[in-house]
Amino acid sequence: MSSIRRCAVIGAGVIGAGWAARFVLNGFDVSIHDPQPEAERRARATLANAMRARERLTLAPIGKLGELCFVATLAEAVRDADFIQENAPEREELKRALLRDIDVHAPAAALIASSTSGLLPSRLQAGMEHPGRFLVGHPFNPVYLLPLVELCGGRATDPASIDAAHDFYASLGMHPLHVRKEIDGFVADRLLEALWREALWLVHDEVATVSEVDDAIRYGAGLRWAFMGTFLTYRLAGGEAGMRHFLAQFGPALKLPWTKLMDVPELTEDFIEKLADQSDRQAAGASLEALEQKRDDCLIAIMQALRAQDFASGKTLAAYEEKLFADAHRGNGAATPPDTSQPLRLHEGVVRTEWIDYNNHLTESRYLQAFGDASDALTSFLGVDAAYRASNGSFYTAETHLIHLREIACLEPFFVTTQILHGDEKRIHLFHLMHHARTQEPLASAEQMLLHVDAKTGRVSAASPEVAKRVLALRDDQAGLPAPAQAGRAIQKRK
Amino acid sequence: MSSIRRCAVIGAGVIGAGWAARFVLNGFDVSIHDPQPEAERRARATLANAMRARERLTLAPIGKLGELCFVATLAEAVRDADFIQENAPEREELKRALLRDIDVHAPAAALIASSTSGLLPSRLQAGMEHPGRFLVGHPFNPVYLLPLVELCGGRATDPASIDAAHDFYASLGMHPLHVRKEIDGFVADRLLEALWREALWLVHDEVATVSEVDDAIRYGAGLRWAFMGTFLTYRLAGGEAGMRHFLAQFGPALKLPWTKLMDVPELTEDFIEKLADQSDRQAAGASLEALEQKRDDCLIAIMQALRAQDFASGKTLAAYEEKLFADAHRGNGAATPPDTSQPLRLHEGVVRTEWIDYNNHLTESRYLQAFGDASDALTSFLGVDAAYRASNGSFYTAETHLIHLREIACLEPFFVTTQILHGDEKRIHLFHLMHHARTQEPLASAEQMLLHVDAKTGRVSAASPEVAKRVLALRDDQAGLPAPAQAGRAIQKRK
Repeated sequence: MSSIRRCAVIGAGVIGAGWAARFVLNGFDVSIHDPQPEAERRARATLANAMRARERLTLAPIGKLGELCFVATLAEAVRDADFIQENAPEREELKRALLRDIDVHAPAAALIASSTSGLLPSRLQAGMEHPGRFLVGHPFNPVYLLPLVELCGGRATDPASIDAAHDFYASLGMHPLHVRKEIDGFVADRLLEALWREALWLVHDEVATVSEVDDAIRYGAGLRWAFMGTFLTYRLAGGEAGMRHFLAQFGPALKLPWTKLMDVPELTEDFIEKLADQSDRQAAGASLEALEQKRDDCLIAIMQALRAQDFASGKTLAAYEEKLFADAHRGNGAATPPDTSQPLRLHEGVVRTEWIDYNNHLTESRYLQAFGDASDALTSFLGVDAAYRASNGSFYTAETHLIHLREIACLEPFFVTTQILHGDEKRIHLFHLMHHARTQEPLASAEQMLLHVDAKTGRVSAASPEVAKRVLALRDDQAGLPAPAQAGRAIQKRK
Repeated sequence: MSSIRRCAVIGAGVIGAGWAARFVLNGFDVSIHDPQPEAERRARATLANAMRARERLTLAPIGKLGELCFVATLAEAVRDADFIQENAPEREELKRALLRDIDVHAPAAALIASSTSGLLPSRLQAGMEHPGRFLVGHPFNPVYLLPLVELCGGRATDPASIDAAHDFYASLGMHPLHVRKEIDGFVADRLLEALWREALWLVHDEVATVSEVDDAIRYGAGLRWAFMGTFLTYRLAGGEAGMRHFLAQFGPALKLPWTKLMDVPELTEDFIEKLADQSDRQAAGASLEALEQKRDDCLIAIMQALRAQDFASGKTLAAYEEKLFADAHRGNGAATPPDTSQPLRLHEGVVRTEWIDYNNHLTESRYLQAFGDASDALTSFLGVDAAYRASNGSFYTAETHLIHLREIACLEPFFVTTQILHGDEKRIHLFHLMHHARTQEPLASAEQMLLHVDAKTGRVSAASPEVAKRVLALRDDQAGLPAPAQAGRAIQKRK
């Protein structure tokens, strides 16, 4: 929904703070209201975690961050909001009262979503003056990383609200799943709850410890569940005969009295003690922060791994990156057009902590990464976007000559200027120079030959007439520039 | 168990064939018996899948493969076996009869394991002459990749059999989980079954399709389950107050009538049709083989991603690799010193999932990372270590000329050869060539000038006499090699 500019977050526990972080990282200003005195400190800690995760998740440019402000009242928080996310405790009466208040104080066009993990939207919206704009948007922890959000409307929800929320959440890099039938627990929590009940019984009955139950998941089925659900997994377990065979073979076992799910174990003080003690032993002294960072790093590693497989959440991440690049490109376009008769300044950045090697120097390959980003910025400037790459092709680097001039330290800012030495419909011969952004000193140069490669054949081909025209125009604009001292050289042989 | 040499596999469906593949890949000869006429063809297809997966899983050397032979009778299969894995359909009477037969025909010292996913070992072993050597070893599909195997003994099982099976399975790269209390379904299948029942209800009641249920898992909780189980995940969801807070907050929801697990949906013909039809739609025409390979590639990518995090199944993989390298080292004895008159092969690797860009190509900067690693391997070969770097200095890259020749896909193996073009006490002028490890084709070259830089002054300096001597010796050894075609070139200017 392009009209969303400001978000409000009502209730900033683990889930609310996670939403606030996702909104801020995507450029939305966020007003938070939470009556708990500790809420602001915790939410800022979550935002710091989310920033750390975002830097690792993708190299796609981070646009301008939104601003986060804590306000004293609900009315103040929602007053100017276009999208409001409610994250109060799971008590129906409490949520209904809050949603009524939000409805009264929010602008008429604002969407209102509840993070409830199981309460029915028809009941939650019952007391609202404008229930058509209300829906459930149920996320998963950590909200700033996990893609899933379940959307569920109530009887009074306007279908257009579902569509608008779908587009908004998708623009944040999420995977919205529309739950078409309104049931307690929606889809995901039904499944989680079933597993969780059985897990509690296993510990309750002394069959396994908390750690052993976790290991039974994460070394086995959990690895599959990261990218295939239970149905596709079982289809494969059925072998060549697929799902029908699987059901014929394992269907009867469903009748066996394996699960104890007819009952819920009583959460007595003793049982809670036992679970909490075993959980402490499992954590083995690791702090919440350390465990959260380990969780985030593993999630990022898995989503990046699946991106390379172009599968499941990896596809969601890839689509999100495309959008970030496109946003950055649009952002550049709106600014004053650059002076194309001079080397272009299309890329800047900061030396990230993970770019530093064991010698505490910026690793040589990261210089090339920065130059690669500058080449991407150039081809994007010339009109190569996701649609172009899919239908026409893109520019590949055929050759690079790197020369190192000066060092740059961790967290220092740099920018890259780009000069076109030659260009035609098939190639761009360019010269990048990386500068320290404060001292302006040159740090390294990269002379590169980029070739246009056809998306279908994988062979060198002519760019589209429009892209080729821009290449030629830029070449001509810069034809009068002197050749850089470091260009056109071979590495000198000594004997 | 070092005394295990030969394995027998009784029943070679999806699970039995997976075991056979894991045994063969770890050097064990395997005799298979399965009365089905199609069994051999299918098992060989599974072995081919497993070989493909193994090549991608790790660069650790694959030792000598075991031999696979199909035999006509159970007696013949188990006659010389040290370890026997039974994988018959889940019917107690059938398994009991087979296990009695196996017990009669197997050597006295052989261990006997059943892959049953839920039948009680005490009942399975009841008719055996030597029940002490029997246990359940319950694996997960694909057996050749997933680490988890549940071990469970019956009342008559000798604890030493559990220990021996534990060591044997661990030596195959698995994570054995000892289920100490004998219950139907053990631990893992209790959890899977609970989730599966609820999934069936969701489809049965038209709440969601097979695809939507899968998406509710794989975009959300499934990503977490790949490395943390449900207990550690919920500990984190509890925030700073941990498990106690989580139970206080979400415990009451357990009482809500969310799950329908008291009942099992009737597997009527209609319902089976519905599930199978939706499953076909989900597969969208992809063949079993294509889906299996996608599943395997995703599993490998995730385990490698977690290896980099040193966490969960990534740790299991790392330990397995250590063992494979140690085995290879023992097998080879002392490595022969390299022939220094030829380009040196000091660095090899596999294209990691995080090296792939949004276009699904190996990012240009990662080529340079691989070449940088090769330069590190060279300077290490020349005597530059941590102590040398601290007291003397090290070689810095001053200039690099990269030329790209061919692409390489994710998870494919490569190696780098290194030729010295010139060297003296202050510099090394070298030429790296990256090759595909299977096809041997050249992928990219890097001509580099390395300068020796003093640790204290940061200026170019002479290497220590010893390191300089090795540089000169290597230069002289390679002086007769022809200059590579890609060396000494500048990027050609076109006008």
